[in-house]
Amino acid sequence: MYYGAIEAGGTKFVCAVGNKDGEIIDKTKISTQSPEETINNVINFFKNYPLKGLGIGCFGPVQIDKSQGNYGEILSTPKRKWRNFNIYKKFKNYYDIPVYLDTDVNVAALGEYRWGAAKENNSCLYVTVGTGIGAGFVKDGQTLNGVNHPEMGHIRVKRSKEDDFQGVCPYHSDCLEGLASGPAIEKRYGVKASELSHRDDVWELESYYLAQAVMNYTLILSPHKIILGGGVMKQSHVISKIKGKLEKMVNGYVKIPPEFIVKPKLNDEQGIRGALALALQEKGE
Amino acid sequence: MYYGAIEAGGTKFVCAVGNKDGEIIDKTKISTQSPEETINNVINFFKNYPLKGLGIGCFGPVQIDKSQGNYGEILSTPKRKWRNFNIYKKFKNYYDIPVYLDTDVNVAALGEYRWGAAKENNSCLYVTVGTGIGAGFVKDGQTLNGVNHPEMGHIRVKRSKEDDFQGVCPYHSDCLEGLASGPAIEKRYGVKASELSHRDDVWELESYYLAQAVMNYTLILSPHKIILGGGVMKQSHVISKIKGKLEKMVNGYVKIPPEFIVKPKLNDEQGIRGALALALQEKGE
Ligand SMILES: Nc1ncnc2c1ncn2[C@@H]1O[C@H](COP(=O)(O)OP(=O)(O)O)[C@@H](O)[C@H]1O
Ligand SMILES: Nc1ncnc2c1ncn2[C@@H]1O[C@H](COP(=O)(O)OP(=O)(O)O)[C@@H](O)[C@H]1O
Ligand SMILES: [Zn+2]
Ligand SMILES: [Zn+2]
Repeated sequence: MYYGAIEAGGTKFVCAVGNKDGEIIDKTKISTQSPEETINNVINFFKNYPLKGLGIGCFGPVQIDKSQGNYGEILSTPKRKWRNFNIYKKFKNYYDIPVYLDTDVNVAALGEYRWGAAKENNSCLYVTVGTGIGAGFVKDGQTLNGVNHPEMGHIRVKRSKEDDFQGVCPYHSDCLEGLASGPAIEKRYGVKASELSHRDDVWELESYYLAQAVMNYTLILSPHKIILGGGVMKQSHVISKIKGKLEKMVNGYVKIPPEFIVKPKLNDEQGIRGALALALQEKGE
Repeated sequence: MYYGAIEAGGTKFVCAVGNKDGEIIDKTKISTQSPEETINNVINFFKNYPLKGLGIGCFGPVQIDKSQGNYGEILSTPKRKWRNFNIYKKFKNYYDIPVYLDTDVNVAALGEYRWGAAKENNSCLYVTVGTGIGAGFVKDGQTLNGVNHPEMGHIRVKRSKEDDFQGVCPYHSDCLEGLASGPAIEKRYGVKASELSHRDDVWELESYYLAQAVMNYTLILSPHKIILGGGVMKQSHVISKIKGKLEKMVNGYVKIPPEFIVKPKLNDEQGIRGALALALQEKGE
């Protein structure tokens, strides 16, 4: 019994074949070209496996509202060739099997929820702090989408008084992503974020912004666990700074469980395994 | 077929008997005394009706996590007599019928979702701006609770540069509730909020804070509709200010549907009718 999983990203597509226990049997990376070339390569990879279902975690924005005629369409992405490409329909028309679609961050949350850091929890939020900032929420096995999919990386945060960096978000300048994403750090200090490990001031500021975001997510969603992933969070010492600041800010108003903010457990496989979970769970397996 | 509904508030308990169409057949208000006196009065009101189920929307904080031993217990409320009182158990032990409990704001959201402003929507957020600020979220008929219940009124917002009011929240000073609740307005200007209708600057500032909150709620939850209720929102002209500011802040990044931010439709009955909806829906009716 084979299930297909795709983590569709702007730079690469990770594709995997898994079984119903969530084990990955085969896996490949395909660099993202035009939709046509890319999908051909994906189909070529899957061709030796009779798939029973396919789960896709896709970069956004993507239409995930099933009541809409354009369900599955990639929307206003800067990747022009992909704009208005319907990734769901493409696979649905090609394979005569159930195809399930969700956002990349929701699917990552699902992976950690089913097999990773939130395996024992009823809900979790997976936050990625990388080139952009995004988050996916799962509760009782269901991801959260609405009239749009959430765009949690673009919430407003208070600036630190010492920070006069204008921010890098083309839409909002100094939203969370504008102030705290990898590119924001790089632009503020003129050095790649990965080369700033020793600079305590950098991570004090970073954790101030992320703690505010975590506070708002906590008060709005009340997740059982918050998992911080993505390139910037390779600086895993930042987690304890965030925790400390969160507790100060929340000030006892709501209960912060032990082990509330953690690293991912699936070693950069949360996306692809989450896509597999999506294929599995929707079939009730 | 009778169903009982209780909107349990800090100053009054609204109790109603309804039928399966959500029509209210009988209703009363009971002032909130000690738990014992209050509950006796409630039971007395219901005594002529053979109830099939009971829905309760309760003031918080209240334990709504069913996996916890103290499910149904009122937690660290300033109303000392009610602290550690288990409202769920009290009714569950008295009546041999299904009893359903949720927070006051979730239940209000459920009322508007089922019969009010969000009747046609798949999800909605109900925000009350009154003595406190709180919000309840419903998606596909289910309210959102987690490790705690959400406390959306306490999120952080950016201050307006002109505003040096310290805020009234005893936990966070200048969280949203601290800056934009009814008591915050009253303390900032030294006059009751209801007497400030003519002061455009007051509502410019108020809408600035509420628009930020609405923006964060929108990016995190992606609701189909946001309903603004509570005493302060009797200033219904504020809604169009909030809309305008929200659109500017979101700046086209996510789609804001038409009629996204609206007034409640149930005329201050969203709480009690929502409690009725809770009793009904959980029985699949
Ligand atoms: N060890 C590191 N420490 C801090 N930042 C890092 C580290 N490694 C990568 N980054 C930053 O993370 C970002 C890339 O995030 P990543 O999650 O890997 O990719 P993406 O978000 O594009 O999927 C870049 O801005 C990079 O500078
Ligand atoms: N017409 C009005 N305009 C502005 N504020 C009002 C108005 N009516 C009541 N308020 C304010 O709303 C708050 C009470 O909110 P309400 O929702 O009625 O009660 P509660 O939040 O206690 O359940 C008070 O702070 C009051 O000043
Ligand atoms: Zn932004
Ligand atoms: Zn507060």
